[in-house]
Amino acid sequence: MLTYSFTDIGSDCLYIHLYKCIQKDILSGKLPAGTKLPSKRSFAKNLGISTITVENAYAQLQSEGYIYSMPKKGFFVAQIAPPSKMPVPVPDSRTPFPAASPYQIDFVSNKTNPDNFPFSIWTKLIRETISEKREELMTTPPCGGIMELRMAICDHLKAFRNMDVTPEQVIVGAGTEYLYGLLIQLLGFDKTYAIENPGYQKLKKIYQSNRVNYCPICLDEEGMSIRALEASKADIAHISPSHHFPTGINTTISRRYALLSWACQGKDRYIIEDDYDSEFRLSGQPIPTLQSIDQSERVIYINTFTKTLASTIRLGYMILPKHLLERFYSSLDFYSCTVSNFEQYTLAHFLSDGYFEKHINRMRTHYKNVRDQLLEAIKNSPFSSRIKITEEDAGLHFLMHIDTTMSDKELLQAADRAGVHLSCLSQYYLDTGETIPEHTVILNYSGLTPDQIPDAILLMQQFL
Amino acid sequence: MLTYSFTDIGSDCLYIHLYKCIQKDILSGKLPAGTKLPSKRSFAKNLGISTITVENAYAQLQSEGYIYSMPKKGFFVAQIAPPSKMPVPVPDSRTPFPAASPYQIDFVSNKTNPDNFPFSIWTKLIRETISEKREELMTTPPCGGIMELRMAICDHLKAFRNMDVTPEQVIVGAGTEYLYGLLIQLLGFDKTYAIENPGYQKLKKIYQSNRVNYCPICLDEEGMSIRALEASKADIAHISPSHHFPTGINTTISRRYALLSWACQGKDRYIIEDDYDSEFRLSGQPIPTLQSIDQSERVIYINTFTKTLASTIRLGYMILPKHLLERFYSSLDFYSCTVSNFEQYTLAHFLSDGYFEKHINRMRTHYKNVRDQLLEAIKNSPFSSRIKITEEDAGLHFLMHIDTTMSDKELLQAADRAGVHLSCLSQYYLDTGETIPEHTVILNYSGLTPDQIPDAILLMQQFL
Repeated sequence: MLTYSFTDIGSDCLYIHLYKCIQKDILSGKLPAGTKLPSKRSFAKNLGISTITVENAYAQLQSEGYIYSMPKKGFFVAQIAPPSKMPVPVPDSRTPFPAASPYQIDFVSNKTNPDNFPFSIWTKLIRETISEKREELMTTPPCGGIMELRMAICDHLKAFRNMDVTPEQVIVGAGTEYLYGLLIQLLGFDKTYAIENPGYQKLKKIYQSNRVNYCPICLDEEGMSIRALEASKADIAHISPSHHFPTGINTTISRRYALLSWACQGKDRYIIEDDYDSEFRLSGQPIPTLQSIDQSERVIYINTFTKTLASTIRLGYMILPKHLLERFYSSLDFYSCTVSNFEQYTLAHFLSDGYFEKHINRMRTHYKNVRDQLLEAIKNSPFSSRIKITEEDAGLHFLMHIDTTMSDKELLQAADRAGVHLSCLSQYYLDTGETIPEHTVILNYSGLTPDQIPDAILLMQQFL
Repeated sequence: MLTYSFTDIGSDCLYIHLYKCIQKDILSGKLPAGTKLPSKRSFAKNLGISTITVENAYAQLQSEGYIYSMPKKGFFVAQIAPPSKMPVPVPDSRTPFPAASPYQIDFVSNKTNPDNFPFSIWTKLIRETISEKREELMTTPPCGGIMELRMAICDHLKAFRNMDVTPEQVIVGAGTEYLYGLLIQLLGFDKTYAIENPGYQKLKKIYQSNRVNYCPICLDEEGMSIRALEASKADIAHISPSHHFPTGINTTISRRYALLSWACQGKDRYIIEDDYDSEFRLSGQPIPTLQSIDQSERVIYINTFTKTLASTIRLGYMILPKHLLERFYSSLDFYSCTVSNFEQYTLAHFLSDGYFEKHINRMRTHYKNVRDQLLEAIKNSPFSSRIKITEEDAGLHFLMHIDTTMSDKELLQAADRAGVHLSCLSQYYLDTGETIPEHTVILNYSGLTPDQIPDAILLMQQFL
């Protein structure tokens, strides 16, 4: 009869040890398919263990399909053929985890300075949420997000952007990138999406990655070119009219109307309005949204709390035109909302208790201060005569045009050597045969602190 | 000269009031394109306000493109053509927000009972995270998630599933549905995805919504049919081998090897292994994963904390085979991680400090208790002679076969009337011409409390 040693049992319990011994013999072929296993009782007696131990081992082997039972006949080894091993493609040696940033000064990343995040209020609100909303926290939210948050977003949009929208129109998701993907599913994989050139590079990647057609459309000083848009095959125009990234262009009212007219000329035409940093217009009033002047339900408005709160809180939202709601809810409401209830309730409080408004005001003052000090320092720097600043009034970045003989590539390399993370306007252009402006760098000061400014100027001197 | 009244100014400040008056006249055509506006000084004098007020109003009008300036000539009204209004499609009257659940007993939803969520530990860990990790909380994580969480997931998988994986292979995302979408982008929109029939209905919807081909493959008692899979055009098999939903079938070891062999027969073939509730196997050992016996890097393992922690914490992860990492990181790492740093760090603590293990053990005991009481109550019920229970050993649901003359539709209607939320096995079948088993209901007891059981039995008596 089959026999096994229990001396090398290690930390396993008896039945697991027996299970492993039999499993090994089945896989090695020592116990070929069809072999009848000893009856539980005689096997137990032979091994000097209890019948229940054998029974448990057999049960586990049976549940995994190593053995099968035939009524009144006992247990038999199943037919098992391990697959012949396929050669495994050698993984690329490139490590996916880059080391920590080698830069002393970073004019590119959107990292929120920890000093600027309202940690104590946030902690208080999370604590309150957890103690007051146990039942709600565990209740599956509608696919568009919890009602409290969607209502709070409506109130916020009314107060800050003069937009009249209902909670049903608000769809909350784990960041705008996720929402763009959802929009492709809503509007169609067969549509062509117009993106701004130059523009936010991720959009191209998202449309590419979803295998949909996109076309880069050039800008003039008023915004996306209507002529180029009309000459394209685009169905959807994806734009940032209130503060174009990276040029800073604010789409004029006449161009806004022209874009809306374009959208009205086809029933499947829509405009995706990305309003990503309108909260940080540093002089004058915020520019009214395209959504708020749209009379024909052609605009899908998108915004995020990434810029205003922290890039590491993944929470964005979109406002769907009313007539698209039925399509959305009938075709996409099987998706679970991608944002945790804990953060949705906390943010809802943060908005409706007025903390967000205070935070935005504080941040606007902070950024204005950083910008003013940076502009002043640049003005007083040795390189001030060779540069020109534009688009400094809207939030979180401006353009610096440099009089230099270096190419943009050389400029970036020199900045790199000096420990300054910079990007050039030319990097945001897709090559469509147009003239690409050189020697214009984008200074994103959102991660800068005032005390870093003297260092930033000293380091920039090394290559300017 | 142009003149405006300041009597109906409301809560606006002076310049905003003036801006609105001029804007209104431009949009109404009262100030046609090309009209020269009064000089700031004379306009101010005429209106009895300060020059700076006129200047601010002009600046706002100019920034929005209502007027433009010509050097030394002054300000002029821009050409603006509001779009002709397009008829707005009438929105459907259907409300997207269903009222609260009308059911007294719910055997369908996955809602976590608030008593079962470890609120106090979770609150403690969030508080610690916020006080200790301010810098890290604000640092943009790699697209696959923060390293601490990915390492904690590796340790967990080693301890509980005997899987050897590295943090680079772990990709964290806002729920498995999001990760499925990412996998389509990684593996290809041109591939055909095999799904289980019967099976988890969302998969069909996700593949449909992403416009990729999918084919339903029937199951036999060992798991997904190899013959049907081989006869299909599938490149990717999406399965739940450890506990099939809804039948509860556990794929046998020989079928697992056969599936791996199938995957080895084409270089673009992969298996997506959804291990969604393996933590709750209520008797014997957990079934080893397909990933752990895969020698040829053909398996993508997916799991979530939805079942184990709460359905409202959106956090899932997938384990990519090593040779796919390069493709993933070169084509998809532009995406931001969809889970907030706050929850990633909190969960990392929860895992690495041993709380998760304790929680799982506690929940396993809880669910076993609920299941045993429910089975006992069914056994002692007046309808016990007309039912048969199967697949009760693996977690959170079992099947109840009913001897009845009612159709499944009638059965569900009767349950509805009694206030019991039920689903039938037949609802999970895609119509592919096969025989669909009738009179089998799925009892998901994850949201049930022991004290609800007597009521549940009484209500079921009304229709059984």
